[in-house]
Amino acid sequence: MEDKFSLISQIFKDVLSKIKPSADLKAQRQHIVKNIIAEIKKFNYNADIVGSLAKETDLAYDADIDIFVKFSPSIRKDELGKTVIEIGEKILSDTEIDYAEHPYLRGKFKGLTIELVPCYDFGEGIFGDFKKSATSVDRTLYHTRYVREKIKKASDKISLNDEIRLLKQFMSSCNVYGAEASIKGFSGYLAELLCIYYGCFIDVVKHASEWKLNTFIDVENLWEGHGKILFGEPLIVIDPVDKNRNVASAVSEENMAKFIYACRKFLLSPSIDFFFNAGKKEKITVEELIRIINERGTKFIAVFYEHPYININNLYPQLEKTRKTLTKQIENFKFGIMNSKSWTNGKNKSAIIFEFEIFELPNVETINGPPIDTPISYQETFLNMHKNAKLGGWKWIASSKRKFTKAEDCLKFLITQKHGFGKEFINLEGKIEQDEKILNDEIMDVFAEIL
Amino acid sequence: MEDKFSLISQIFKDVLSKIKPSADLKAQRQHIVKNIIAEIKKFNYNADIVGSLAKETDLAYDADIDIFVKFSPSIRKDELGKTVIEIGEKILSDTEIDYAEHPYLRGKFKGLTIELVPCYDFGEGIFGDFKKSATSVDRTLYHTRYVREKIKKASDKISLNDEIRLLKQFMSSCNVYGAEASIKGFSGYLAELLCIYYGCFIDVVKHASEWKLNTFIDVENLWEGHGKILFGEPLIVIDPVDKNRNVASAVSEENMAKFIYACRKFLLSPSIDFFFNAGKKEKITVEELIRIINERGTKFIAVFYEHPYININNLYPQLEKTRKTLTKQIENFKFGIMNSKSWTNGKNKSAIIFEFEIFELPNVETINGPPIDTPISYQETFLNMHKNAKLGGWKWIASSKRKFTKAEDCLKFLITQKHGFGKEFINLEGKIEQDEKILNDEIMDVFAEIL
Repeated sequence: MEDKFSLISQIFKDVLSKIKPSADLKAQRQHIVKNIIAEIKKFNYNADIVGSLAKETDLAYDADIDIFVKFSPSIRKDELGKTVIEIGEKILSDTEIDYAEHPYLRGKFKGLTIELVPCYDFGEGIFGDFKKSATSVDRTLYHTRYVREKIKKASDKISLNDEIRLLKQFMSSCNVYGAEASIKGFSGYLAELLCIYYGCFIDVVKHASEWKLNTFIDVENLWEGHGKILFGEPLIVIDPVDKNRNVASAVSEENMAKFIYACRKFLLSPSIDFFFNAGKKEKITVEELIRIINERGTKFIAVFYEHPYININNLYPQLEKTRKTLTKQIENFKFGIMNSKSWTNGKNKSAIIFEFEIFELPNVETINGPPIDTPISYQETFLNMHKNAKLGGWKWIASSKRKFTKAEDCLKFLITQKHGFGKEFINLEGKIEQDEKILNDEIMDVFAEIL
Repeated sequence: MEDKFSLISQIFKDVLSKIKPSADLKAQRQHIVKNIIAEIKKFNYNADIVGSLAKETDLAYDADIDIFVKFSPSIRKDELGKTVIEIGEKILSDTEIDYAEHPYLRGKFKGLTIELVPCYDFGEGIFGDFKKSATSVDRTLYHTRYVREKIKKASDKISLNDEIRLLKQFMSSCNVYGAEASIKGFSGYLAELLCIYYGCFIDVVKHASEWKLNTFIDVENLWEGHGKILFGEPLIVIDPVDKNRNVASAVSEENMAKFIYACRKFLLSPSIDFFFNAGKKEKITVEELIRIINERGTKFIAVFYEHPYININNLYPQLEKTRKTLTKQIENFKFGIMNSKSWTNGKNKSAIIFEFEIFELPNVETINGPPIDTPISYQETFLNMHKNAKLGGWKWIASSKRKFTKAEDCLKFLITQKHGFGKEFINLEGKIEQDEKILNDEIMDVFAEIL
């Protein structure tokens, strides 16, 4: 037992030596932040650093800096983005505008990527009584304040900063880190809350290894034991600054399960490998993939889209909606899908990849008609439409020429119909490719996930 | 209206002229019956003619004569058949023993086919209070008596004999006549009851054309309006001599529907054609069939059995059981069946024919494993069995080599396993044929039904 303890301690030390920003790096980052805030001040706006850097839970290689420009609640929402862009374009270089709930600016400052985000400043908030949110980012200032206070409070016993860094690194390594729509994993704030709740990294791992579906964590006990039934997500972690919000709402069942399994394996045989590319699939070559596909005997068909840049948090849900709607529609035509995946390069290309279990069907299909004791007019309509109708049990059945005997023809038809497609995909023309033609270097990782 | 009435009257006359036994034929049949009964009397047994000849509802071409040899209820059941066979073999020529509930004898007498059946004689029965049945044939004497009395009672207004003959002929022509397991249609007694209940042939047709599922006919009102929920069959006609028996229990939904539809069509445009081969499918040639099958793009696979003679009412239900069980088992392996049919030549050959919609599947299949929050030991078992397991949502999934990628291989396996097969089929070895090899002159009619 003593051995295992010292082994784990050593692993943590080794991990931190690789991921914790050095004193120099810390000083450099803070210096840049101060500079930017000072620059913004010149335009008569206050700004705050938020995110991991503000809470000192940042990782050495994670160089993104989020700065929130604060506005009085009296200013109209649509002014916020405009102003931040104006200011940002004067301070930063290589700027680009992006859109989440409202526009914000991304740019460079002394080599680091900075995001300038507008928010309202509601003054001092009381934890657990946060009601004044106007936009989804307005909570962030309060999250930052909450985590900082908790870390400070614990600091005479433990460095929660480092515990959080370990957890983020562990989650990142097993591919469950990030609340973006394309990842559906654990946000940085969620990792922080778990460490605050359970006390340290290893206790998060121990508890998570035994999580059930609908695990409910109420960090500040805001619901006094009565909140669980109000939330339907696989994992529920109540936001200490807003008891009506589940911080873990983005976490998919699959990512929660992956995390649980990684925790179990780590406890069984702790190793530094869990912190670095544990979830990384081995790269396979195109040739190897062709061999595997042929061996499976399934059929791969993909729809490719080219489009202008769309923020991935807007794009990905639409791509997923399109994938799900297509899957349902294809299966209504009796083809069978074994796997399907959305893919995007995050810039200008997206694709939906289907692996078909049933991709060819006979020329005829059976059509069910009305029962013999329905009103005669229904029956006549069916009998007029289907000259070969016969009684199959109590109802009429007919055999009819099938609309599509090949999955690719069915898919071709559906992507021109576009019923139930994601908003942006209604105006795009998809292009169908199949078999080896799907495979290219960009898209290979998706296949690693499927196969 | 007058025109339609006289048209229908003319049709009935024309039909009866073809199907009603002539005075000569009637005399000849009755003479033979008397002779046989007299012969039996010599062995000190009483016998009764039953069935259509006894009720004078027989058809000219339907030459079967059923004679019941009556035994005292004090005689043991297993003696009955033995005695009848002994007597019959002395009276009849070309005899053969058959088995229903107990053995009986079939043979020739002056060129006519005679069935000698043993039964108990319980004396005078009261209609609607028949409780003493020892074997299923014991009701027959009472049925005969009931129908004869009803015909006699109505005889000053209408010849129910002829109305019944019309109905039997109509049913026979549209292939729904016969309560045998291989037909699942209307028995002669049921046709008689329908005419008694509705009053004449044309009123049976009018009412039947509007039958709903679970139509309930209580001829003698033995249930006083409360019996319907006790019977689950599509058509319920309470036996006037046994209120707990549904005379129509053999009628399948499909045959009831066929009859309803034929009645409707007859009312719309009455014609003599409805009485002669209305339900007859056109014969198609093997060449034509091959063309149709190829055009459909489906796959036909059949299992053939050779066996000793089995009474069709025992054989057919077992064949159907085997067909249904195989269908279910094949679909568990993910193959798709569009049509299936049992076939037998009624002597020594049977077959089950499948038309496959999905007859080829990829080499791999997806196996569902336990969820991540089940006991670890379950998960370990699955993970050890499936080295490629991954988390698909909340549960483990794996891809595995499929046991059967071709429907014929699956079928080959299942007919050696014989799980859930009909009793007689457990000891038989089936032989699989596919595509054109299935087609032979004997079996062609089944295809006419499927296609």
